[in-house]
Amino acid sequence: MAQHSAVVATAMKGNCSCELPFVRRPIKIAGMGAYLPPHRLPSAQLEQELALAPGWAEQMVGVRERRRRSAGQTAVQMAALAARDALDQAGVEAEDVDLVISASVCRQQFIPCTAAFIQRELDLPEGRSFCFDVDATCLSFLVALHTAAPLVESGVYRTVLICSSEIPSHMMQAREPETVVLFGDAAAAAVLTAAGPGESSALEGSAFATFSSGAELTELPGGGYLHHPSDPNTTPEMNQFHMRGRPVLKQALRVMGPFLDAFFARLGWDRMEIDWVVPHQASRLGVSQCTERWGFRPEQLVLNLATRGNCVAASIPLALAEAVHAGDVRRGQRVLLVGTGAGLSLGAAALTF
Amino acid sequence: MAQHSAVVATAMKGNCSCELPFVRRPIKIAGMGAYLPPHRLPSAQLEQELALAPGWAEQMVGVRERRRRSAGQTAVQMAALAARDALDQAGVEAEDVDLVISASVCRQQFIPCTAAFIQRELDLPEGRSFCFDVDATCLSFLVALHTAAPLVESGVYRTVLICSSEIPSHMMQAREPETVVLFGDAAAAAVLTAAGPGESSALEGSAFATFSSGAELTELPGGGYLHHPSDPNTTPEMNQFHMRGRPVLKQALRVMGPFLDAFFARLGWDRMEIDWVVPHQASRLGVSQCTERWGFRPEQLVLNLATRGNCVAASIPLALAEAVHAGDVRRGQRVLLVGTGAGLSLGAAALTF
Repeated sequence: MAQHSAVVATAMKGNCSCELPFVRRPIKIAGMGAYLPPHRLPSAQLEQELALAPGWAEQMVGVRERRRRSAGQTAVQMAALAARDALDQAGVEAEDVDLVISASVCRQQFIPCTAAFIQRELDLPEGRSFCFDVDATCLSFLVALHTAAPLVESGVYRTVLICSSEIPSHMMQAREPETVVLFGDAAAAAVLTAAGPGESSALEGSAFATFSSGAELTELPGGGYLHHPSDPNTTPEMNQFHMRGRPVLKQALRVMGPFLDAFFARLGWDRMEIDWVVPHQASRLGVSQCTERWGFRPEQLVLNLATRGNCVAASIPLALAEAVHAGDVRRGQRVLLVGTGAGLSLGAAALTF
Repeated sequence: MAQHSAVVATAMKGNCSCELPFVRRPIKIAGMGAYLPPHRLPSAQLEQELALAPGWAEQMVGVRERRRRSAGQTAVQMAALAARDALDQAGVEAEDVDLVISASVCRQQFIPCTAAFIQRELDLPEGRSFCFDVDATCLSFLVALHTAAPLVESGVYRTVLICSSEIPSHMMQAREPETVVLFGDAAAAAVLTAAGPGESSALEGSAFATFSSGAELTELPGGGYLHHPSDPNTTPEMNQFHMRGRPVLKQALRVMGPFLDAFFARLGWDRMEIDWVVPHQASRLGVSQCTERWGFRPEQLVLNLATRGNCVAASIPLALAEAVHAGDVRRGQRVLLVGTGAGLSLGAAALTF
């Protein structure tokens, strides 16, 4: 942990982004919401369908069961259900929402943005809120938090709704059983408001870095102009998600340690002072690095991988929402949200909840 | 102009988002960049190809010619060329970029985000910058400015690169000649830094609103889970852009007046104090409303519709970049960026340049 970052060294040229200051934002996650489709799909069933050995999924990726959306259920409907939960938890009326950010990989259609459809699904008053999408793959929720926090802090928005809703089941292919068994459908949402007088809640700091040499290690090559849906050369495989698990893990292992060292140096907290670490539920091997390499204790970790799978951008907020609802994560506690996303990107956000 | 907003009235419930304060951000667009593909496509040629009367395109949508990317040229390559121009204008080294935001409708592929590919195309040092995408269709550049400004102001990032690069030519269809002749390919970029001591540059205020009843008036229904590229029921038409020009204009006309009234009431400037109004180059009828209904004078407008077409999210930053490069928009002048996007969304940002 004390090693000085090789990444930092190579990236450094006079001033390095990893030396930029953290700015504390006195904002509050006033409510977290979750929505899980009722259909549970056990690994045993997938193993049978894909002719895999019993126990293969749990052994390979750490997932015993995951949820699957009901037929015809949309990610926007799921986002709205998670949003209702978050608004209820926050005690905020839907019509008071000033900004809706869709922070998801799944999108309903290419144009317009998915957040506009969430505004409609929630029946929010027209013109009362603004809607846009952010995309940093699995880190999208953290990016939404990072960009919305200063706007809430400065009073530009009073109430921000962030939704991450994912139905990765529609972009998987049987040819890559590791991804088929890894991912699950779910939605989560957060309501952000300013911290009240005397409340200690804050976004204490957040940091991100992208290593684009790894862009193709986790990709869905279709869906853009490179392999347009109407291009006769676009194959069905191009419209499916592909992940080269081991090279991704290798790159993540190389860069995450130094990234976290720089993060904690700027944050001024010790790793042991964190009450809860909510990692992106990337895979069994991915989350195990939290304790094996990155200096956290098992009892600090919030994990839902075994029963939810990797829910893409919804993974971190879903795990946080479930831990809040269970009474584990409480007001005033120190929470670290941390993960990797396609890009390859790293991200972390420290909260006083 | 003095009319009190019907939108505001219906949207209001105790506290209305249109009454939220503007917060001045002392940041500077240190450099604007532009890239135009060299191939000029005159309307006469398109009119011949589409069996339209000579002069039809200019009369209908106000476009005499537009650019088309070279065969195989990617929006990422175009974004990088515009970015190089913006960095040169700003006198900033590429390796000092802390954050890359792709603020475009066009994306290279579904996963990862396009900004990661821009980092690579610019050969930015790995891990030195973070990359994510924002999407609010034609307002994406304004949203990137709006969200990046407080992060630059507070020192979280020193140098932010925003790229809007569009190749709408690949999503048009001959069945809708109005859209075929309207759109053009182009890229634009901006470098944001903090305003220096004694510099008056600032983002004075920005505001946005979404009216999702109009979501399907401007849409590309494919490209998401609703009409997945691999779904046999997805037709080629679903993967093309559709705009119902007249209903969109009707909705925009209904809501933009009150939106601008509320914007100027919060900004504290009079419309006549604005040096330059840079509207989204939506269409001939769209931009003509600036003078016909929204209270601006023709000499305030920055227009490039006739020779560039509607360049989607690149339209506003391209028009601004060209006006800055021509020496029209100068330091210290008051600039209004304003437009509509699919959603239907409205947006405006006031700058002291």
